[in-house]
Amino acid sequence: MFQITFKISGSGDRVVPAAPQQNLLDAARRAGVSIDAPCGGVGSCGKCRVRLLEGVLESEKSLHISEEEYRAGWRLACISKVTGDAVIEIPDAATAYQNSLSSDFTTTKRNFGSFKELQRKLSEAGVGFPKTFSSVVIKLPEPSLEDTMPDNERLSRYLYDKYKVDYVNIPFYVLQKLPEVLRENDFRIKCLIEIDQRRLSIFELLPPDSQVSPCGVAIDIGTTSVSAVLVDMEHGRILSGLSAANQQIRYGADVIHRIVEASRPGGREALQNAIVQETLNPMIRRMCEEAGVSVSAICRLSVASNTTMNHLFAGVYADPIRMEPYIPAFFETKPIPAVMIGLEANNNARIMITPNIGSYVGGDITAGVLATLMWNSSEMTLFIDLGTNGELVLGNSDFMMSCACSAGPAFEGGEITCGMRAANGAIDTVTIDIETMEPTLGIIGDEGQKPLGICGSGLIDTISELYRCGIINSRGQFIRIGDRVYRDSEGRGVYVLEKKENTASGRDIVINEGDIDNFIRAKGAIFSAIRTMLSSLSMEVSDIDRVMVAGGIGSGINMENAIRIGMLPNIPVDKYEYIGNSSLAGSFMSLVSRQAYDQTLAVARSITYLELSTTPGYMDEFVAACFIPHTDESLFA
Amino acid sequence: MFQITFKISGSGDRVVPAAPQQNLLDAARRAGVSIDAPCGGVGSCGKCRVRLLEGVLESEKSLHISEEEYRAGWRLACISKVTGDAVIEIPDAATAYQNSLSSDFTTTKRNFGSFKELQRKLSEAGVGFPKTFSSVVIKLPEPSLEDTMPDNERLSRYLYDKYKVDYVNIPFYVLQKLPEVLRENDFRIKCLIEIDQRRLSIFELLPPDSQVSPCGVAIDIGTTSVSAVLVDMEHGRILSGLSAANQQIRYGADVIHRIVEASRPGGREALQNAIVQETLNPMIRRMCEEAGVSVSAICRLSVASNTTMNHLFAGVYADPIRMEPYIPAFFETKPIPAVMIGLEANNNARIMITPNIGSYVGGDITAGVLATLMWNSSEMTLFIDLGTNGELVLGNSDFMMSCACSAGPAFEGGEITCGMRAANGAIDTVTIDIETMEPTLGIIGDEGQKPLGICGSGLIDTISELYRCGIINSRGQFIRIGDRVYRDSEGRGVYVLEKKENTASGRDIVINEGDIDNFIRAKGAIFSAIRTMLSSLSMEVSDIDRVMVAGGIGSGINMENAIRIGMLPNIPVDKYEYIGNSSLAGSFMSLVSRQAYDQTLAVARSITYLELSTTPGYMDEFVAACFIPHTDESLFA
Repeated sequence: MFQITFKISGSGDRVVPAAPQQNLLDAARRAGVSIDAPCGGVGSCGKCRVRLLEGVLESEKSLHISEEEYRAGWRLACISKVTGDAVIEIPDAATAYQNSLSSDFTTTKRNFGSFKELQRKLSEAGVGFPKTFSSVVIKLPEPSLEDTMPDNERLSRYLYDKYKVDYVNIPFYVLQKLPEVLRENDFRIKCLIEIDQRRLSIFELLPPDSQVSPCGVAIDIGTTSVSAVLVDMEHGRILSGLSAANQQIRYGADVIHRIVEASRPGGREALQNAIVQETLNPMIRRMCEEAGVSVSAICRLSVASNTTMNHLFAGVYADPIRMEPYIPAFFETKPIPAVMIGLEANNNARIMITPNIGSYVGGDITAGVLATLMWNSSEMTLFIDLGTNGELVLGNSDFMMSCACSAGPAFEGGEITCGMRAANGAIDTVTIDIETMEPTLGIIGDEGQKPLGICGSGLIDTISELYRCGIINSRGQFIRIGDRVYRDSEGRGVYVLEKKENTASGRDIVINEGDIDNFIRAKGAIFSAIRTMLSSLSMEVSDIDRVMVAGGIGSGINMENAIRIGMLPNIPVDKYEYIGNSSLAGSFMSLVSRQAYDQTLAVARSITYLELSTTPGYMDEFVAACFIPHTDESLFA
Repeated sequence: MFQITFKISGSGDRVVPAAPQQNLLDAARRAGVSIDAPCGGVGSCGKCRVRLLEGVLESEKSLHISEEEYRAGWRLACISKVTGDAVIEIPDAATAYQNSLSSDFTTTKRNFGSFKELQRKLSEAGVGFPKTFSSVVIKLPEPSLEDTMPDNERLSRYLYDKYKVDYVNIPFYVLQKLPEVLRENDFRIKCLIEIDQRRLSIFELLPPDSQVSPCGVAIDIGTTSVSAVLVDMEHGRILSGLSAANQQIRYGADVIHRIVEASRPGGREALQNAIVQETLNPMIRRMCEEAGVSVSAICRLSVASNTTMNHLFAGVYADPIRMEPYIPAFFETKPIPAVMIGLEANNNARIMITPNIGSYVGGDITAGVLATLMWNSSEMTLFIDLGTNGELVLGNSDFMMSCACSAGPAFEGGEITCGMRAANGAIDTVTIDIETMEPTLGIIGDEGQKPLGICGSGLIDTISELYRCGIINSRGQFIRIGDRVYRDSEGRGVYVLEKKENTASGRDIVINEGDIDNFIRAKGAIFSAIRTMLSSLSMEVSDIDRVMVAGGIGSGINMENAIRIGMLPNIPVDKYEYIGNSSLAGSFMSLVSRQAYDQTLAVARSITYLELSTTPGYMDEFVAACFIPHTDESLFA
């Protein structure tokens, strides 16, 4: 065994033993160091750049590493093998795509403010938000030789009397410690309880002076990114919020690869482990730490996610989802006890899964539709969720139709040379001077934040501006040359957004023709899906009253730019609204109100599903949409 | 570290590393060798006799090991420490008290036959035994692009239609594998189901040709011994049965010591582990193996046990049980999911706990009372359960009163020099020739079985015969001397039941004055409890119409002998009935019929509890009963 020392930017050293010929990416993971590898570790994305400081390493050559860089020790971890002791530097950039546990994720932050407003709108639409969770201090009569009632009867009779409920549920885990907590506190205790439909459940027993309130966690599990908020269920306050990369990403960037991996022996456990143990539990622990509450105070959780993600999260066999006739195990499922899948929470906490609509339109869309209130509006609404899968819902209170298309990870910065999630250091707005071709960048983060990469909204701006300035043509090929524009060794056109002396990574932040091509296919998938769905309903773009765009692709979307590149239909910009992470918003509503959860069931049941892959004309539409803005320029005239 | 090799009679060698000064009993346990130590490992019971064959061992001297035996290598494991490599022989006798997993336990065997008869009697008393579990083969319509219903809806709709139930429960663990099992079997599968009160639950999905039926396990957890039967719930057949020592015994012989141990840090887990992981799971695995069924076919379990045992089994804090005012956490508790406490069974199996009556009269007595049918009879019945705790219930369909006394482990062979449980090799009947003082022995096991020790019924016979033959006086002191009677080095009288050349252990099987004294205190506790309860009700012995005696103390009890030594009241022998392990019988009934379980709730609620320790006169009665037969000989005239 050799010894590998990882020097991690900002968090010190980790030392692990590694076997000869062991893959460096694996060795890093064993050390708890999650290096980015959105391509799945096959050497194609170039995101796992690390630097050999001392010792030896056997690495394949890569186009992502120049000769000069190679001499300076730069290597791709995924195509490097251990051949002796080594000291390896892990720069920030090698974890930028994941940017694990970014508590300052701006979209989540903004959602904090908007949740109250959404709750008000839902209330107006008839979805109530009665408070069901509370913490109560009670004093039980102490037992004596004349009053030898067992502890569980003593407690439940008191609660029956006090709250006039039909049923008192003392769960097994509470019973186990009931005698001890009662006697340590002279029979005066604080209980975290829920009273719902005249049924009282006890979640936790605490000393009477404890400051803990019953909490909940609303979660959005995306294929690429995961977001969550920790909520005080008693006072309706958001205590903390986090966003992180879905650690399943090493099993593939899209749902199909994940399902294939999950279908291998031990695969279901591995994929479930990656989301539960490696992604969500660290998030939950961190949020609780920040809020100063114990994990055992989490009495309920809500998960909104696409169909594959909620199957893999629950450890449900998912293989039929990817094979005709594409059948999931469930649309609706009863709440899952958190303890059954190893999610850290109160032992009696249950997880509400927002219901799926189809195999490729999942609970994240149901949650999003709940949050749009389109089910309660006469306005013809187009709801678009931009993610690794793009999903659309079109309709109003009379009908709703959904469809899904595979956009790939480009909107979230995946398969883009300098792509990253919309986290600190992400370039999220770009303008380019048509004369000088010099860019002006907006960067997520505090003042002075150096750029690290480009997120989805930055890509929209960049491509739109490159096109507007005549730097690229309608095929995404470079047609101007200048200080910031050159051709690389493969002959691909490249535009430099920021030079290495000004970046956080010390490397140029660039966009090349390959990136533009990936992005064009992503936007083409979305646009052609919109066209196909409209035509299947014999509708026109002009029939749409409003468009609500969701997804964690940046702090906002410049809709003019999105229209200019042919990603979104050419209708007045004021009909567009960017609503951020609507899946998380709907997950939050389902968490805090059973009525909201019940509404997601009604919403999911009322939405029909259009399978694009079997809809005539979709492929033609897609090919036609893979231009800037479109082969039919009249659509964007 | 040194190396210790254990040579185990009948099962080969086990080698473990051991630290210097490590206790040999601990080292053996680490090697998975359970040596008897009912005294808790303090050197007093002398049951952990092992033999040093090679190497070194540092042992304290013990009265249980003669000089000659010491020279021959005999040592008590519990007071021996590792000081170097050693080879240690573990003879049969060192595990006879536990006799782990004795599948041929005669009492259990006899119960097999009597369960059918008991079921018939309960039916006559209005307790129905409707069949609720079954295995059904179903063929679901296969999905297509036109019929894309998710798997869980497909299955539940089919079952709703077919069985006209109000609710179909597809538990989470079943959902996880539903898609795979459906497709591996072309949508034709076998389901293990329960239909109860128009509610259908699925426990297991299997290939259509599987021969598995839904099974259940009825368990009796005694302080010293544990018995269980595996039942085919569909066809009402008992598939196998086992008896074993409660591995909690190393934490103390009685419930008080166990509670004290459980109240230490980590104690609850340790005590639960001892009963669940070390006692019950091996029993369940072995029974399933013998019956050729999978552990996952076990859909329900039933546990009858005293209050402390069911608290420790469930991992419930039990300390208040031992301290005034003696309050348990529960009398009744909802079924416990087996998976929550790590009991090996179907993931959705639930454990029915027969309800407790008081802190010292538990669910084992409730189960026993159910089996006696005294709650449905006008006859004044005295029910006696002889165990480490002795419990009594007196009454009929008008009223029932219970009490408990601490008899100690003597009835189960504990704290008796050559005592053992009623398993193979146990002397269970004894007669002595008044002239020659030669005994005639009955031994549990096949013909030719050599005796290994004495069980409870053998002790009753021995002491009664020694008294009848004038070998001992009413204080239990030896007053005749002969070939089989001598005084040991401590001056204690000893009677030799079988000489070492004829025993399975190669040592004399004896009973000494200390053993007799222990037994007299046990029988005195029972008799004085009967007297005290009767007088508290202003009743006489003659008011009793019948006496039902339960407990795993042998293959039967010679009631004349039990009366002669003053253990049981002097009423006609034909009023007595030995009913074996009534706790297991009641546990079985609760397992196979919800109505029977509901009847245990009614029974437990209707029984009042008399606390002997605070009842005037009990201590005087006890002291008076610690003679053979009694200080008041008129009671046995």
